[in-house]
Order: sequence, then C-alpha cells, then structure tokens
Amino acid sequence: MLNEILEDIVGQLWFQLTLLLTVAIASSLLFAKFKQPKIIGQILLGIVIGPSLLGLISVDSDTPGSMVPRFAELGAIMLLFLIGLECDIKEIYTKRSLLIGAGGVIVPWVCGYFLSELMLPDPGVGYDMFSQSVFVGAALVATSVAITAGVLKEMGIIGSDIAKTLLGAAVVDDVLGMLVLAVSAGTASGEGIDLSDLTWLVTAAVLFVALGGYIGAKVLTKVVASVQRRGSARGLEESGFLMALSIALLYATISEAIGLSAIVGAFVAGTIFARCEYRTRFHGYTKVLEWVFAPIFFLSLGVLIDVGEVSSGAWLFALVLTGVAFATKIAGCGIPARLLGMSKGDSLSLGIGMSPRMEIAMVIALYGLSNKIITGEIYSVIVMMGLLTAVFTPSILRRTMRSVPKTPAVCETVDA
Amino acid sequence: MLNEILEDIVGQLWFQLTLLLTVAIASSLLFAKFKQPKIIGQILLGIVIGPSLLGLISVDSDTPGSMVPRFAELGAIMLLFLIGLECDIKEIYTKRSLLIGAGGVIVPWVCGYFLSELMLPDPGVGYDMFSQSVFVGAALVATSVAITAGVLKEMGIIGSDIAKTLLGAAVVDDVLGMLVLAVSAGTASGEGIDLSDLTWLVTAAVLFVALGGYIGAKVLTKVVASVQRRGSARGLEESGFLMALSIALLYATISEAIGLSAIVGAFVAGTIFARCEYRTRFHGYTKVLEWVFAPIFFLSLGVLIDVGEVSSGAWLFALVLTGVAFATKIAGCGIPARLLGMSKGDSLSLGIGMSPRMEIAMVIALYGLSNKIITGEIYSVIVMMGLLTAVFTPSILRRTMRSVPKTPAVCETVDA
Repeated sequence: MLNEILEDIVGQLWFQLTLLLTVAIASSLLFAKFKQPKIIGQILLGIVIGPSLLGLISVDSDTPGSMVPRFAELGAIMLLFLIGLECDIKEIYTKRSLLIGAGGVIVPWVCGYFLSELMLPDPGVGYDMFSQSVFVGAALVATSVAITAGVLKEMGIIGSDIAKTLLGAAVVDDVLGMLVLAVSAGTASGEGIDLSDLTWLVTAAVLFVALGGYIGAKVLTKVVASVQRRGSARGLEESGFLMALSIALLYATISEAIGLSAIVGAFVAGTIFARCEYRTRFHGYTKVLEWVFAPIFFLSLGVLIDVGEVSSGAWLFALVLTGVAFATKIAGCGIPARLLGMSKGDSLSLGIGMSPRMEIAMVIALYGLSNKIITGEIYSVIVMMGLLTAVFTPSILRRTMRSVPKTPAVCETVDA
Repeated sequence: MLNEILEDIVGQLWFQLTLLLTVAIASSLLFAKFKQPKIIGQILLGIVIGPSLLGLISVDSDTPGSMVPRFAELGAIMLLFLIGLECDIKEIYTKRSLLIGAGGVIVPWVCGYFLSELMLPDPGVGYDMFSQSVFVGAALVATSVAITAGVLKEMGIIGSDIAKTLLGAAVVDDVLGMLVLAVSAGTASGEGIDLSDLTWLVTAAVLFVALGGYIGAKVLTKVVASVQRRGSARGLEESGFLMALSIALLYATISEAIGLSAIVGAFVAGTIFARCEYRTRFHGYTKVLEWVFAPIFFLSLGVLIDVGEVSSGAWLFALVLTGVAFATKIAGCGIPARLLGMSKGDSLSLGIGMSPRMEIAMVIALYGLSNKIITGEIYSVIVMMGLLTAVFTPSILRRTMRSVPKTPAVCETVDA
C-alpha cells in the first residue's frame, strides 16, 4: 500500500513541481553564498536531478500529462515580460544597436559554420553534415538578454549609455536570430529556403516588433489603464494586471505563430507596458510569477542535458566552441561599436556583454535535436557552450565595466 | 498564410490562456458593476465560451497538450492555499465542525440511496440496482469547498465564525467522503468491504490532516523561516515563499495520493504557514498566483457543462437530484449546527455553503461509470447535479449571508 502511494506521488505533476522548486531554492541559496548567479546554480542542479546523474525527473514533452515543459515555457515568457517592463523602448531601438546587433549575428553564424565543418566528424546515417554545421552556427547567434540585463542591473549601471546600446543590440540580435533559425531550418529540411516565406518572415517580424510595439504603446496601454481604473473602482485591483498579462500571452502566441520565439513576443509586450502608468505595480506582480516559473525553466535546461552522452572529443569541441562564441561576439559587436565612435574599452565590454547564449541557444539546439538536424551529442555540446558563456561573462564583464559610473534605470529606483 | 497563422493561434495553449483571462476580466468587471459575485460571472461566461454555446474552448483532459485543466487545478490549489493562509487552525478543527461534517455525509448518502431506489428504473443487464443506488448516494456526499470559500472570501467574511466552521466541516467531509467511496466501491465490486483497507484509509487521512498539520506547524514553518532569512541575507527575497509553495504542492500531492482531494492538502499547508512570521508576505505573493489561476478554475467549471448532451428524462432526475443535494446538506449540516447552538440563519447558510459538489462528485461518478456500476446517463446526471449545485450556490449564499458582518482574516487587513 505504501509502495503504491509512493509511486503515485513520484509520478504526480504537483510533486514534480515541488521537487523542482525545492532544488531551485537550494541551488540559488548555495550559489548566492559564493556570490555566483543563481541561474547557473539552477542549470547545474538541473543536470544533477536529470538523467545525467540522479534521473529524478524528466521533461520529456511526449509523456502524456507531463506539463513541466509548459511550465518552463511560461517561466521564460514571464522572464522576458519582466525584462521588457524594465526597458524604455525609445532608447533601446537605435541605429547603433541595429548595426551592432547585425554584426553580432553574422560573424558568429559564419564562423560557427566553418568551425563545425573543420572540427566535427560526419554525424552519420540520418543526418546531414552541411545542415548540422549551419545549425551549429545558428546556435552561436542569439544573445541571452536575461544574463546581460541581470549583470548590468546587479552592477547598478542599467541606465548607462553602453547598457542601453547593449540591450537594444541584444533585442535586434534575438529577432535576427529567429530569422537565422528559419533559414537554417529551411536549409536543413531539404526543402530549401523559400524566398517568399523569408520575405514574409522578415515583414511579419519587423511589423510585429515595430508596429506591434508602437500600436501597443499607443492603444493597449490605454485599454489596460482603463480596465485597471474600472477594476480598482469595483474592488478588482488585479484587473489591469490580468489584462496586461493576457496581452503578453497573446503577443507570445502571435510571435510564435509568425515564426519568432514566444519570448520575443513577451518582451515586446513588456516594453509596451513599461510606458504604462501602472508599470511599477505590474512589475511587482510579474516578479512573483517569474520567481515561481523561471526557475523551472532554468532547471529544465539542465535536466535536458545528458552529460553521459558527451564524449571526451565532444568536450574539447565544447571548449573550442565556447572560445569562438566569445571571440565572434567581441569581433561582431565590438568592431561596429568602435567604428560608430565608442571607446576601445566600451566596445570590448559590449562584445563580452553580448556573449552569453544560454536559453536561446538551447531553444535553437532543441529544435535541431527534435528535428534530427543535430545529434544528441552536438545538442549537449551547444547547451554546454551556452552554459559556459553564461558562467564566464559576469565575472569578465565586472572587470571590463569597472570604470562605468553608476546609472540605475528610472523604474528601478521606483520599484525598489 | 494568414489562415494557417490564425489556426495556429487558436490551437495554442497561450492563446487559450489569453482568451480565458480576457473573458474572466470582462465577466468580473461586468458582474462587479451589478454588484454580483465575479465567480458566478466566470462560471456563466464559461458556459458561453464552452461547448454549450460558442465552443471556443474545450477543457477535455484527454486532448494531448491541453493544459487548461491542470492550470484550473492549480487555480483551485492556490485558492485553498490562500484561504488556509488566512485561517487559524485551532479555530477550524473543532468538535462542532466534526459533527457538522459527519451529518453532511450520512444524510446525503442515505437519502441519495433511497431516491435512486424510488425514482430510477432497473439499469438493465450487467448492472446491479442496489450498487447503483449506493453509488448515487455516494456521489451526493463530498462537498467541493473551493466555490464556497471563494464566495466567502469575495464577500469579505472569510474570518467569520460561520466561515471557520464551514472550512473545518469541509475537511471532515472530504475525509469521510473518501471512506464512503471506499465502502460503496467495495459493496459494488461484490467482493465486500475490506476492513483492513478501510482502517488504512482512515488512519492515513486522519494522520495526514491532524499530524501533517501539527508537525508542519512545528517543523516546516521553522524550515521555511530559516530559508527566508538565509535568502534575504543573500538577495533572494523569494526563497521562503517558494519553499512554502513547494510544500503546498507536496501536501496537495500526498493528499491526492491517499485518496483525499488535492485542495484539502493545499488548505492544510496554508493553515501551517498561517502561523509563520512571514505569513503576510506569503499571502501577498500567493494572491498574485490566485488572481491568475483561480479564474481559470471557475471558467472551466462552466466550460465543462454541455447542456445539449442531457436527455429530457434525465433532466428531470438531474433537477430532483440537485434539489435533494441541497436539501440533504441543509438538513445534514444545518440540524447539527442548530443543535450545537448556531442561529437559524447561520445553520441554513452553513448547509447551503456545504452544497456545491463539483469535481469530487464527478470523480466518483467517473469511477462508477468506468467500473460499470452506473450507466452513462446516470453519469451525466451526476455531473449535471455537481454543476448545478455549483452554479446556484454563490447567489443563494449571497442572500442568506447578507447579514453576516464583514470579518476579513487578520492578515488581509495588513495586506491592504
């Protein structure tokens, strides 16, 4: 009887969430003690409880009733919505950040492709060498906004000129990264790249980010503010926030439907409500959702890694790939920055700040894995690269950015 | 292309959540304007968007990827956790709530049995009349406390004497309801009732509610407070709350595994942390989760109703059964309450408050259906009874409880 009950419990969704949250807390506390970012702790503990070591939990989306992947997705959406809420859209999307973002996409993609062609053996039956190389390049493209913003926030320089340029470039980078994924996926599917599809994707993506952001800020903030006023008057103080949240989920849906990632939509929605008079309130509420679900996202990234699958040869490739990941962002972003008149030190910082790949590389890698474009081993290598760039960036950035004077964002002082 | 995108969007989980949240906000605002409870609005709008009318959304848990039922469950869990956080455990588990809970189990079971013997024709080959009647009675037993608790909370009287008695009686009711199901299933299987199994069930349930609550308050609150202190010192202010939340989910899991409903576990967990020094903080954070997910629970109650599926003969029995469902709880809970010194009005309100059956009646009915104890039509009737009791209770309760003075829980005044 007791055995049956224990079996019942372990298979339960709510128990899996219990386990994930407990592990997330433990790892965060441990890593905070040693002044390391909690995100890294969560991914590493995810590796420990996942199939690599303990095998306590699986995030296989094929398992019926397994909702952990959806809760993880919700976590990523909440994270980017929160970061969007902290951004001033006008100071973010500039010509400078556009050029720096573009440089930071092209250089890593091209270099990643050649590195894979140079170092990797043929992946074997059922795979295609060219497609795999294109995908390794694609995985080097997208910067993790979360890590970058987190470090800048921690250093108290989120309002500085270089920080704004960096955030804007990271957004441009995300959007271009999705285009790179579309091209890579088109190439790999063997159906080739449909130019009309690509034109559509470009148009839709630009329309969505630019116009969606603009109309959202002009119209939707007013709708939400009106809902909030009516709600407050009738004792429903949550109304405005729920409305903003449902718009964030809608933007995530549209974003995904036109081929961008759901989190890009969530971020755009966040930037909309960053201009809303209830921004501070929404920020506080979103933070609670982010606390609960974002750790599930980061843990599940670790759970997805199976270290046992990585051979010693792959480890070497992971280290080289990490080096290339840094070098290509420093060159791809730093050189345009320097040409556009930024100081040598700032240009270097910018390149390093754009280096963490993390979750977006992993999303791309996961796409490649589930579509049989890359092998499980290459998947693990890419995840490892994402992890290593994220682990090293904060401490390097703290050194190169030491001289930037403290300039917190306006809303941060309000929020705190 | 646009068509494909629209199809993509409508099938998306995040879009379903957008839709549910938007409908929830609209119905809440509308019903608040006419000073009606938002919960009724949400259930009614759920009927409108569900298969009964518009068919915009389905909460069929068999559909792969459909997570709305799990989000709804999370909503019920958050609601009861929140209410638990507002309770003083000592005022909940009294001799009074024990006797009222017991009365509310025995009367509906016995009356349901006789009603079925009186009104229902012989179910035909492969079924047994006696077993069917025992099961119809069993389906009348278990109160679904989430609805009443939601109404009391909305009315601002969750801290009142009658609310405390009702919450305690609902827990007792759930424990006894599980025993009734075990006895009914044993009778129907023809194998008789296994006494050692029954003893185990009683022991496990009582141990869980009593000891789980006691040990939790003595040990787990200290663990959580320690986690909170460590977290705060390291810039992780969310740690204690996430720990408390993971314990709530664990209690929900254990509760379900030993045969109780998940929300009883969440409630017990809430009462534990009601004694924690960080109660107000946890209450504020849980409220955000309850705002987001509880409306999904109430909406999905409406979506579950498919008015078109029930035959006219079955409608008659469904209406009679609903009447009996109300009458037996009013008698079973109200009479002991009156005898124990509660006022006439309070005793009546208590009985009505204990009347919603919902998901627990449905679980029992589904068990009966899949074990060939009751026919498909009786199953639909029981589901309809569960829904009707849920739909009618809030508005009736608002009337009978009009005179109860506003008595919010202690921490609510602090939070506001």
